[in-house]
Amino acid sequence: MYRSRPRGRMDDEVLRFLSSIQHDQSILYYDIVGSEAHSIMLHEKGHVKLQELKKILAALEEAKKNPGAIDTEGAEDIHEALEAFVIGHAGMQAGGKMHTARSRNDQVVLDIRMKVRDDIITLCGALVQLIGGLLDRADKSKDAVMPLYTHTQQGQLGTFSHFMLAYADALFRDLERVYNSFGRVNQSPLGACAVGGTSIDIDRRRTAVLLGFDGLVKNSVDATTSRDAFLEYVAAVAILAGTLARIAEDFIIWSTSEFGFIELADRYSSTSSAMPQKKNPDPMEIARAKAAVITGRLVAMLGIVKGLPSGYSRDLQELKPQLLEASQAAIDMVRVMDGAVRTLEVKKERMLAASKDSYAIALDIAEQLVSRGVPFRAAHKAVGALVGRAAEKSVPLSKLSEKEIGSVLKQSKLDFSPSELAKIVRGMTPARSIELRRSEGSPSPKEQEAMVKAARQRLAGFEEGVQKRAEFVKGSFDNLAKAVDRYLSS
Amino acid sequence: MYRSRPRGRMDDEVLRFLSSIQHDQSILYYDIVGSEAHSIMLHEKGHVKLQELKKILAALEEAKKNPGAIDTEGAEDIHEALEAFVIGHAGMQAGGKMHTARSRNDQVVLDIRMKVRDDIITLCGALVQLIGGLLDRADKSKDAVMPLYTHTQQGQLGTFSHFMLAYADALFRDLERVYNSFGRVNQSPLGACAVGGTSIDIDRRRTAVLLGFDGLVKNSVDATTSRDAFLEYVAAVAILAGTLARIAEDFIIWSTSEFGFIELADRYSSTSSAMPQKKNPDPMEIARAKAAVITGRLVAMLGIVKGLPSGYSRDLQELKPQLLEASQAAIDMVRVMDGAVRTLEVKKERMLAASKDSYAIALDIAEQLVSRGVPFRAAHKAVGALVGRAAEKSVPLSKLSEKEIGSVLKQSKLDFSPSELAKIVRGMTPARSIELRRSEGSPSPKEQEAMVKAARQRLAGFEEGVQKRAEFVKGSFDNLAKAVDRYLSS
Amino acid sequence: MYRSRPRGRMDDEVLRFLSSIQHDQSILYYDIVGSEAHSIMLHEKGHVKLQELKKILAALEEAKKNPGAIDTEGAEDIHEALEAFVIGHAGMQAGGKMHTARSRNDQVVLDIRMKVRDDIITLCGALVQLIGGLLDRADKSKDAVMPLYTHTQQGQLGTFSHFMLAYADALFRDLERVYNSFGRVNQSPLGACAVGGTSIDIDRRRTAVLLGFDGLVKNSVDATTSRDAFLEYVAAVAILAGTLARIAEDFIIWSTSEFGFIELADRYSSTSSAMPQKKNPDPMEIARAKAAVITGRLVAMLGIVKGLPSGYSRDLQELKPQLLEASQAAIDMVRVMDGAVRTLEVKKERMLAASKDSYAIALDIAEQLVSRGVPFRAAHKAVGALVGRAAEKSVPLSKLSEKEIGSVLKQSKLDFSPSELAKIVRGMTPARSIELRRSEGSPSPKEQEAMVKAARQRLAGFEEGVQKRAEFVKGSFDNLAKAVDRYLSS
Amino acid sequence: MYRSRPRGRMDDEVLRFLSSIQHDQSILYYDIVGSEAHSIMLHEKGHVKLQELKKILAALEEAKKNPGAIDTEGAEDIHEALEAFVIGHAGMQAGGKMHTARSRNDQVVLDIRMKVRDDIITLCGALVQLIGGLLDRADKSKDAVMPLYTHTQQGQLGTFSHFMLAYADALFRDLERVYNSFGRVNQSPLGACAVGGTSIDIDRRRTAVLLGFDGLVKNSVDATTSRDAFLEYVAAVAILAGTLARIAEDFIIWSTSEFGFIELADRYSSTSSAMPQKKNPDPMEIARAKAAVITGRLVAMLGIVKGLPSGYSRDLQELKPQLLEASQAAIDMVRVMDGAVRTLEVKKERMLAASKDSYAIALDIAEQLVSRGVPFRAAHKAVGALVGRAAEKSVPLSKLSEKEIGSVLKQSKLDFSPSELAKIVRGMTPARSIELRRSEGSPSPKEQEAMVKAARQRLAGFEEGVQKRAEFVKGSFDNLAKAVDRYLSS
Repeated sequence: MYRSRPRGRMDDEVLRFLSSIQHDQSILYYDIVGSEAHSIMLHEKGHVKLQELKKILAALEEAKKNPGAIDTEGAEDIHEALEAFVIGHAGMQAGGKMHTARSRNDQVVLDIRMKVRDDIITLCGALVQLIGGLLDRADKSKDAVMPLYTHTQQGQLGTFSHFMLAYADALFRDLERVYNSFGRVNQSPLGACAVGGTSIDIDRRRTAVLLGFDGLVKNSVDATTSRDAFLEYVAAVAILAGTLARIAEDFIIWSTSEFGFIELADRYSSTSSAMPQKKNPDPMEIARAKAAVITGRLVAMLGIVKGLPSGYSRDLQELKPQLLEASQAAIDMVRVMDGAVRTLEVKKERMLAASKDSYAIALDIAEQLVSRGVPFRAAHKAVGALVGRAAEKSVPLSKLSEKEIGSVLKQSKLDFSPSELAKIVRGMTPARSIELRRSEGSPSPKEQEAMVKAARQRLAGFEEGVQKRAEFVKGSFDNLAKAVDRYLSS
Repeated sequence: MYRSRPRGRMDDEVLRFLSSIQHDQSILYYDIVGSEAHSIMLHEKGHVKLQELKKILAALEEAKKNPGAIDTEGAEDIHEALEAFVIGHAGMQAGGKMHTARSRNDQVVLDIRMKVRDDIITLCGALVQLIGGLLDRADKSKDAVMPLYTHTQQGQLGTFSHFMLAYADALFRDLERVYNSFGRVNQSPLGACAVGGTSIDIDRRRTAVLLGFDGLVKNSVDATTSRDAFLEYVAAVAILAGTLARIAEDFIIWSTSEFGFIELADRYSSTSSAMPQKKNPDPMEIARAKAAVITGRLVAMLGIVKGLPSGYSRDLQELKPQLLEASQAAIDMVRVMDGAVRTLEVKKERMLAASKDSYAIALDIAEQLVSRGVPFRAAHKAVGALVGRAAEKSVPLSKLSEKEIGSVLKQSKLDFSPSELAKIVRGMTPARSIELRRSEGSPSPKEQEAMVKAARQRLAGFEEGVQKRAEFVKGSFDNLAKAVDRYLSS
Repeated sequence: MYRSRPRGRMDDEVLRFLSSIQHDQSILYYDIVGSEAHSIMLHEKGHVKLQELKKILAALEEAKKNPGAIDTEGAEDIHEALEAFVIGHAGMQAGGKMHTARSRNDQVVLDIRMKVRDDIITLCGALVQLIGGLLDRADKSKDAVMPLYTHTQQGQLGTFSHFMLAYADALFRDLERVYNSFGRVNQSPLGACAVGGTSIDIDRRRTAVLLGFDGLVKNSVDATTSRDAFLEYVAAVAILAGTLARIAEDFIIWSTSEFGFIELADRYSSTSSAMPQKKNPDPMEIARAKAAVITGRLVAMLGIVKGLPSGYSRDLQELKPQLLEASQAAIDMVRVMDGAVRTLEVKKERMLAASKDSYAIALDIAEQLVSRGVPFRAAHKAVGALVGRAAEKSVPLSKLSEKEIGSVLKQSKLDFSPSELAKIVRGMTPARSIELRRSEGSPSPKEQEAMVKAARQRLAGFEEGVQKRAEFVKGSFDNLAKAVDRYLSS
Repeated sequence: MYRSRPRGRMDDEVLRFLSSIQHDQSILYYDIVGSEAHSIMLHEKGHVKLQELKKILAALEEAKKNPGAIDTEGAEDIHEALEAFVIGHAGMQAGGKMHTARSRNDQVVLDIRMKVRDDIITLCGALVQLIGGLLDRADKSKDAVMPLYTHTQQGQLGTFSHFMLAYADALFRDLERVYNSFGRVNQSPLGACAVGGTSIDIDRRRTAVLLGFDGLVKNSVDATTSRDAFLEYVAAVAILAGTLARIAEDFIIWSTSEFGFIELADRYSSTSSAMPQKKNPDPMEIARAKAAVITGRLVAMLGIVKGLPSGYSRDLQELKPQLLEASQAAIDMVRVMDGAVRTLEVKKERMLAASKDSYAIALDIAEQLVSRGVPFRAAHKAVGALVGRAAEKSVPLSKLSEKEIGSVLKQSKLDFSPSELAKIVRGMTPARSIELRRSEGSPSPKEQEAMVKAARQRLAGFEEGVQKRAEFVKGSFDNLAKAVDRYLSS
């Protein structure tokens, strides 16, 4: 429909190559609503008569109710198809005015901004849910003593709740990033037109208000060229996916029969077509893979814009599916993780058994030496040698005799009473190890309690913020719908 | 259907998250054919009776004819859905045997290998076409003198054909890489089973032959874990996309009204919804963007496998859409580029006009000094100063007076006759510049001729190779179809 | 020094493979300062005696003054080397206590956080400078009419200043993102220890204050595992690099002799070893390439954390050089771009010449028809056909006769006076095109004025914010230095 | 030195930004050798007199012996610095001729090709070593029965050797890819000059032979623009790194105290600064991280070339460090992995213990039912239910009573003798499970034997090929050195 200068139809294969129709369904709704706001503003500024406006709005409402009726055959994108639909229903005299002072260049990025805005609200809501689930889990597992790992090797003792709180804290930052990206997304580009604005007297702020935006992307070149707000959102999503992949990795390792610390619920598990015994943590594996997929999408987006000159280039069309699919993947990941966290079984006995014989109390023992005046580095040496001796015999530290302890102390040139060290070692039960811990943010019972409480308060704040935003956007759209109704019945 | 140990159904949201059904349509055909070959082998080895085989094959043929009849509701993937379909049609006694000595783990990678094999053949065919088009173009534009660029600045003079030949040579290497990746793709994993092979007496070489494979991925852990052959193919495709993006970039720049060297055919151009004058090189922009998109897919794939332990992990499922979409994008790009190359208009007059006043003859002039005994570095200095003088006055070199030339020579401390240099400068027309060039691979007429000829011969070799491969795979599938028919009518 | 359990030295090749020493020089300073704060806190809490503290501080001050004296031979990293240096200078009894209630796991991420904090301040300062330069440029080139481009094709007319303002607006968002990343970076992990905190009575808030942090990364698993704040910063930097690459691309295209709109200053240009005439925009090309390089670093970082379990893993060491080099590259890019912008020459005549004969006034003409009652879509068709006619004849629109215009109108079935359209066309000079533009954010003189003014105010706010932050961090370090001096002279 | 047209020096900050000097040391040697070959050819073709050649060669030999004497102050790259050094030593009349018929554009890619060629030889040699080590390990651990995993869950039983062979097979493909990339790398671009060849009578094939190349990159635009051969090599390296990361991941998991299947040698282990008991698999973690780092470098390289026009652009300079660092990282990874494999301890008893009580024999049992006529899908259901029963009671399958087995069979509606199934279950020891396996590529003793033998033969072929190549390149360089000596002493 737009081919005013080039002659003839486009080659079919080229049309397929160029067409974004298959990815445009997700923005059709926004294209309709945006066109309604634009048309109302054109009418208010005197460029479209009331009767013309009514015809346009009627056609747009019809498109909204019956999107299947829009003929996309031969259209490069949904904008062209929708305008043709409107002209078909409203006639050229009315429908032909809808695209006044507008271009696909500002229109497409308007649509995507509205879609991403909704996705951000949805994703933030899902994150609030997931963090809530982690805090519930933390609250119920403060007594589940288990090893903490560094290098996937047992490091110190801790609790299952401590991991849940670590996840929650990391996800709070993810939530913050996603939440903050909203500000730069929710700015209206409409009215920037093709690239240099328009000589028609329009009111950009009016359409922005009608569509629930917080402000304008003012400069017309910037408004039609820039995609950084989307890059920011997908970068935040990629980082979030990394956090979720870490949780997934922990869960996959803990679900092995060798660790045996947790068991995913049956409805969060898959099985094998061949091996009858299998119960696999597939949702965690897909979540882990999605982190890489989203990174790939971010790379595609950064690569697309890299080296593009100013002004809209068709390259940017390829950005849209990358953006929207990354966004949907993140929402799905968060929801599935939420369900998995809420339904998994914590196997406290297995955790305790692994803790009991663990060398992960070595640092606790060294710190007891420190509190008795031994320089830390010397204590580290001596306790390291102690573990070496125990490991040779494949016994836990508590099974070393006082004599063996004495011999290690001697060899480490540490002047310390073997019997006192033996007492320290034997007293260092898993429970004792946790109780002794006292630094802020450690897994001591007191710290756990405080962290759960603080996190709950913080979460409530986010929940309210997300709620308010959702209501504001919904309110704007409701008002617009009422205005459309008023015009149609005027 | 496979949930023998986990109880109850999977959560619906989780199922959606895990399901690959939407991406599996492209491998359904291969899953059916692979199942036929496997079933025939099981019969030949005595594990399935003739009557059972007939029932299985009948069900599979039914699935091939009527894929819509396969119920995918609640299935995690197409393999499960197809086996359920076969059991439904053939009964448990027969259909329940189809999955003997097989697992989804070897089955899915079998299917993908067959699909990628076909894609490689298609892509190689399209590349042969494109290179052919470039050579035709080169042949017809050996007289189209135009500047060659470095740093997007005019460097030396050359010809349009010289670019076409440069593209062809780069694409030959791309073709080689894609062509060579076939060898590592076309190896059968079937019979590796879940991860450790089987105690059932099977014949892996027989199914490999039935399905047109060149050999086996032998080790059962390797066969079910490794995806490097796909990574290699997509890496080759990403590099190819880079070559195509370079061509696209050249064409975009040359299509600007400022350069004006070429004009894409109308059916390879798009326009603007707002600016009536526009004729945009959109297919070239999409091609450029696809290079970034394919890089993103490669990143996703490399990221997915990074850090996975040995043995199938569900993460690998996410690799499939990345792989297949990258592959399809490459095929599309090559075809569209082929059409664009064959239909674009070369504007020789604009090229010549740009060449005439260009400083890009400066090196030619310096080399004339060299051939008269001036050390190159001194010649470079003097001619650089000459250009500086001309640029100040905004005139071409030929407009400098002998006096000005003399003054520059003096200033450059070069003892050379001003009148002789003036003669060299004035004689250095675009045509002369090209004729003087003599090094192998330069745009001299003789070299162009030789390069076109050599490239045509090389291309014929590839064309034949691709053809033979296509026939071999088709021949294997035809033979298998005949075997199925024989069994069904026995 | 830490090898208390494993026996013997590490293999030399492995040591080289593992060692981060070559990348650690950039964090050595922070490691020293962090160790001073930690030691002071240990003393304040009673774990280190005054005399011991003095010895430790003296050794650390010595290391600061004479970093070359630290023996890194055989050390895996700078932390180990520094502790060995301190023990060497202060003795085991004092120096051996420095690492009490600390681990390399919280120490390394503490150092990096301080380094990145400084980089953020530097980068923000450089961005403020660059935006200032762009605004100066904009202010001085509001009358430089030139084409605006979409698809690298002339779209509408605009001004050079309009591009400068578009860059400034995009960079403001980049600045915002980098500026905001500070909040999540400037949190102290110190005291998280290895992974599970400590039983030693420490005061994490005290060291945080001493080192100028805004707060704590509280949870000990989170503090030692998470790198999301660095990912966020590098993501912001990658997006910024994309903005700079866009500017670079514009400049490269505009610097071609075919466009000829700008000329980089000689000291921002490079030349050729062979072609004497060359003046190449190399800094712009390097800037463009750096965008890809930084994307690669972000990918490396996202890839490193993908699928890591909770708790420090050595993989994270590889993140450090990626992070710091991306950060430095961004700082360099911004500075070089600043210089290039301030010194380039704007060639207004070339810009005007390109504008005069341009079809980029087609939309202006169509909008004049709209303001006379023609539906936009009909106006678009007619003016498109007009351009088609002019293009066939290779003349500007103003050279079409009234008769030709009439014939096009007839053919387009548009009932409009040919003479009036001819008048519109002939009156549409470049200057007129710009003056007529009136939408908010367009390149009309009034809008340009307003945008420059608003941007200057906004910039002043950021400048102040960056300044305050820099002073706060410096103030904290100054206070710490005074405390060290006090102890040393006590 | 090359600044013939731009005036004055380059800005210092810009020079630092542009300069590649710090990354050029690795190609200096090749730049010297390449310059020697080029100068000799120029002499042979009559462009440089014998006395001039002697001066040039003497200067180049001096540079080779004493690279520190080359003044890099103010030079943009090593090529400029070296030419200035030669002119300084040989005088302008001789030294000023060295750059005749050459440009940095063909020179730099010549140097890199020679460097990468050497790296490929080195990497292939290291890979041959590593595969050899894996085969030795395989040979010695064919009796080390252990679980095979899918989804990180126990799947079937296998052997440690089976993993080693799987690694070897994957690495063979990596070796093939790296080995094959040599062909496209080892082509000489020298003589393509700036972008369009030269009018000077040169002999490109002569320099190619002198420098050990297999042929020419003929087309001068292609030779100076294309970097696909390097992309191919780094892509092959990235895929290889993925294989190594998989081995690393297996080793990390198996090194946990929970699995306990292997123990890395002390000299391949690191420890903790805080936790005395730690023995961490750090080299494996770094190897895992390097896979992501190399992916990042590949992304940077693909991103750099994406959208570049034809002809050298300075962007390509940024490709060099990405390429060379990826290459070095791969060489390091392979060597460290080789050492780790050769020195790790295999804990057969732990492996056997994990196998004994494992449900990973479930498929073996199902296949026994199949061999007694039960359809596989029905057998899968029944054995799955059996495992479910055992898991509920937390006992191995062999501890289920005949009565329990009968009840499960009844419930699964499978008409099979409980006592026979009980017999099958109890007889399915780990050893029996492995012996029963018979498919090609399975971990049966016979298959293991055959796979080790075949792999050894294959490896010998590669070893010979790598050796020959190394000798050929070395031979060419030796001949060149002799020619230089001859000229110098003539």
